Amino acid sequence: MEFAELIKVSRIDNVRVRRPGKPAMEMTVAITGHHLILSNTQNNQDIGDREIWLLHRGILIVQKENDSPRSGTLCLKYKDLRTFYLDIIGPDNVVNLLSTLSSLSNVSEASSAYPFFYNHGFKGLEDGWFLFRPEEEYSKLLLKCENIWRVTKVNYEFNVCSSYGRLNIVPSIIGDIAVAAAAKHRIGGRFPVPVYIHRKDDNREIPLARGSYTVAGWRCTEDERLVAGIKGTNRKGFILCVQHEKTRSSVTAGKIEYDSMYPQWKRVNIKLPSLTDLRESMQSLTLACNDPVNEKWLSRLAASKWLSHVKEILNTACLIAQLIDKEEAPVMVIEPDSVDLTCILVSLAQILLNPDSRTLHGFEALIERDWIQAGHPFWTRNSPSNMEKETGPVFLMFLDCVFQIYTQYPCSFEFTERILVLLADHSFASQFGTFLCNNEKERAQCAVREHTVSLWSYLNQVEILSAQLNCLYTPNPCVIWPSVAPMSLTLWSAYFLRWVQDQKHQAYERKKITEIIERNKNAKIEAARLRKELDELQKEALDLGLIEVGEKQDEEEEGELEIVEPEINLHQELSPRGIKVPALGDNK
Amino acid sequence: MEFAELIKVSRIDNVRVRRPGKPAMEMTVAITGHHLILSNTQNNQDIGDREIWLLHRGILIVQKENDSPRSGTLCLKYKDLRTFYLDIIGPDNVVNLLSTLSSLSNVSEASSAYPFFYNHGFKGLEDGWFLFRPEEEYSKLLLKCENIWRVTKVNYEFNVCSSYGRLNIVPSIIGDIAVAAAAKHRIGGRFPVPVYIHRKDDNREIPLARGSYTVAGWRCTEDERLVAGIKGTNRKGFILCVQHEKTRSSVTAGKIEYDSMYPQWKRVNIKLPSLTDLRESMQSLTLACNDPVNEKWLSRLAASKWLSHVKEILNTACLIAQLIDKEEAPVMVIEPDSVDLTCILVSLAQILLNPDSRTLHGFEALIERDWIQAGHPFWTRNSPSNMEKETGPVFLMFLDCVFQIYTQYPCSFEFTERILVLLADHSFASQFGTFLCNNEKERAQCAVREHTVSLWSYLNQVEILSAQLNCLYTPNPCVIWPSVAPMSLTLWSAYFLRWVQDQKHQAYERKKITEIIERNKNAKIEAARLRKELDELQKEALDLGLIEVGEKQDEEEEGELEIVEPEINLHQELSPRGIKVPALGDNK
Repeated sequence: MEFAELIKVSRIDNVRVRRPGKPAMEMTVAITGHHLILSNTQNNQDIGDREIWLLHRGILIVQKENDSPRSGTLCLKYKDLRTFYLDIIGPDNVVNLLSTLSSLSNVSEASSAYPFFYNHGFKGLEDGWFLFRPEEEYSKLLLKCENIWRVTKVNYEFNVCSSYGRLNIVPSIIGDIAVAAAAKHRIGGRFPVPVYIHRKDDNREIPLARGSYTVAGWRCTEDERLVAGIKGTNRKGFILCVQHEKTRSSVTAGKIEYDSMYPQWKRVNIKLPSLTDLRESMQSLTLACNDPVNEKWLSRLAASKWLSHVKEILNTACLIAQLIDKEEAPVMVIEPDSVDLTCILVSLAQILLNPDSRTLHGFEALIERDWIQAGHPFWTRNSPSNMEKETGPVFLMFLDCVFQIYTQYPCSFEFTERILVLLADHSFASQFGTFLCNNEKERAQCAVREHTVSLWSYLNQVEILSAQLNCLYTPNPCVIWPSVAPMSLTLWSAYFLRWVQDQKHQAYERKKITEIIERNKNAKIEAARLRKELDELQKEALDLGLIEVGEKQDEEEEGELEIVEPEINLHQELSPRGIKVPALGDNK
Repeated sequence: MEFAELIKVSRIDNVRVRRPGKPAMEMTVAITGHHLILSNTQNNQDIGDREIWLLHRGILIVQKENDSPRSGTLCLKYKDLRTFYLDIIGPDNVVNLLSTLSSLSNVSEASSAYPFFYNHGFKGLEDGWFLFRPEEEYSKLLLKCENIWRVTKVNYEFNVCSSYGRLNIVPSIIGDIAVAAAAKHRIGGRFPVPVYIHRKDDNREIPLARGSYTVAGWRCTEDERLVAGIKGTNRKGFILCVQHEKTRSSVTAGKIEYDSMYPQWKRVNIKLPSLTDLRESMQSLTLACNDPVNEKWLSRLAASKWLSHVKEILNTACLIAQLIDKEEAPVMVIEPDSVDLTCILVSLAQILLNPDSRTLHGFEALIERDWIQAGHPFWTRNSPSNMEKETGPVFLMFLDCVFQIYTQYPCSFEFTERILVLLADHSFASQFGTFLCNNEKERAQCAVREHTVSLWSYLNQVEILSAQLNCLYTPNPCVIWPSVAPMSLTLWSAYFLRWVQDQKHQAYERKKITEIIERNKNAKIEAARLRKELDELQKEALDLGLIEVGEKQDEEEEGELEIVEPEINLHQELSPRGIKVPALGDNK
């Protein structure tokens, strides 16, 4: 792709830039193949506002507003919720900039994206592309139960399922030929696979699995064997069947056959928001958020239904966790194509069940494993506006749900909500290749790993990483049970309101806590150093007979510096609240 | 009053007690003149639930629910938002308990209230009744400008204004006879008085004053002179005229005369919620909060209008602060009887303007001065349900507004929101005399000071006080400007949702921060102790010639323990946002 052809104007001076909640500024606008650069020509502004680099890929909408013979206004809305109004002198400039930005933001080939052109200026300690290799991740997952499960290479060339990764886990008793046959019976070839094995104290192992709907019309013994293999020796399992408007009735119809095909699995239908629901909800929420003097704020927030969707999804994730942890029943989440709500649900359930996924490394691994490798179509979901119907804030909804759990368990996560905001932004538009393409097959075709930098390489640099750490983190080995009552859920203001609301004071509070903890550490080190020095001097004095033995020992006892962590134990397991477990007999 | 006559049943066994969000319990109910005592007869419960003491004064509603020949249910709602359902066996028991609780909760004489019967078991360091004496409080307020203002004893016997305290501040140029004459021209005799003097860096002093509406029909030179005296040498002032539905039109009518009577004062009419608005808003908010599985939560929260009222009131307080601090114009807040919204507005404005009022002592002083002494009718506003029309959550609304400011400036308050919850509870029903009666005259008649304990005596005990302290407090000498955008305001969940929502994890976070700070302090003390010891030993060694001089000094330099507080300076003054200042000429 030759960007030069699309760029009809590369620089416009004296543009008045207006943003909600900020004073208007005179700026120069420059356009490159991937960026719109706003540079401040007045020198009286903060350094932060002197240059603003905006990726064209991040543009949600660009449109012309009022227009006069001499000048016009372009309204630029970005996916990260920022809005800019550019007042431009000269009608040609307006038309040319509009056309340039429309074309550049609608470039849809991943291979033309910025990550392929980005020269990173940092030395990552680790190459993020090799941080979460399926081989190693799976062997961690299967630890101690490698006789029950095995890693299959049946999809190594992406021939069995084009949207799964090269390696997948299947029950050991199922051969590759059976897996390939089962895949043919599932929409998009997305055959059932376990994503997490929950271990109870008594060494019982309960799998959480995912898969797409079966293709109606015929039975498939291999698929039935695969599903039975996932249940293993567990008494009963639950198939959580995600439904929304676009779910075809033919798929949901065959209930009776279903039950006979998959005995000892109970099917539970759960109605959850569709891609369209999420997109529309996000649109009305964004409109409400960008209207800071809006008197009807709460009504509009309610009408956007965003928090209702958060509630429904979080509630379902808690149900999954409850079935697995309390009922000790395997759960398989299915969805027509299993690339959206399934990703949210299986990863949220892991956040609740698995303390590792609440560490920074574990959380990155979770996103890599259950979103990127699992084929959530990041590229399509964040497409330019000309492909709107396939877009939707699926990953953002997941991050919001994590935020809600974090808010209720502020000491149980190794990271803070900062990383959630960062991930949201990079999923929309980024200099890194991590969220490029829709699945591993596409990534292999584009040679993403070879030609782009991984977001994890950037994130795992010491200074970047340490900014994400939660100074209040205390590892919590238990399953956590957030409240899903509507009044327990709050708007994620650090994401949705960051451009319209002053967040300085809350940031100050967090910074102050961090500093106090830092000073605490330093004071301890200093005390330890002094103690050592004193000991040496006392030893010397003792050797020279200057003080008596009793004296020294006395001191030592009294002077012991306690470096214990706080001992408030909140980690006793809490019972989940307000979630009804469907009984196995109660099959409607 | 003989309580024995009203108590028709003093003990009922085997009562099943149900509370939202808690398991039902078998309990014994005992009734005394002031308390309903629920005692747990099962021994498997927490110690906290073993006995619940509930003041009859705290009852909002007691009513009979379903009824059968053998048993019945009493529903008990308390002003602190707790709800209890008592399932009682025996129809007589139900009727007798209902009648007993109805009578006892409707006792309206302050002199029969519990504080007169309460034997306190603690030794207060200070007697709270003498902590905030008007003499001393006023001399602090008038510091450096005692030639402009004076303290008058004209109301010493409560003859001039029955709801003001004995001492009041007036301009020095106005004699007592003129003050008494002015009082006759104001509803309830509530003549204009300054409540706070704002000092700018250039030593300019701008007063904030309060007063009731004038009595329409005639002019009063003394009142005009008094108002002119409050303006003093300032160029212009603003009369902020609080209006709501019940404001009589005759009062607001005389606009033209008004302007000529009080030259250089501009009148600004502000429509704010009435007592009825607040009461109804609170009722619908309470209903919504007690319905935890409610799907329409956000819509019901919006429909209650509570946060809209918070916004309107906070907005007006910011306007007052802005007029005083930015326009340097005196402000006089008037209201028909000046005992409700006026109290909220003048005290909120001080929280914004005066850093002292954000300390624990300063906040207590503010409540004592501008609520208790100023004659906010606490007793009537929290009357039993048979006097509902005069009730309303005025003080609670003030506390909620303080909570909103605290949330936005979490490091600028010496106290946390805990004290706000505590004050709300005590204002409704308490063992202390602080919130008894409606004004100082009534308190003098009942001899409240002589026969009851002050809440401040209790609160200022070291262990109680320290539990209220905000470990993140950093004195902020500036005027603070909270955002009043609807999206910046949140429901005060620690008050409104405390009985239905699990607040353990948030409490854990706060506790952990406090512990870390405590350990930091201890580590510093320990380091200082070790350093001292080392110094002594080194000195000894030096005297004996064991080490050289240079050695020791080297150590000292390197070993210096920094005990500096964090140096993030967020205290530069921020500009107030979104508040339109009415221009002096723009008089509509």
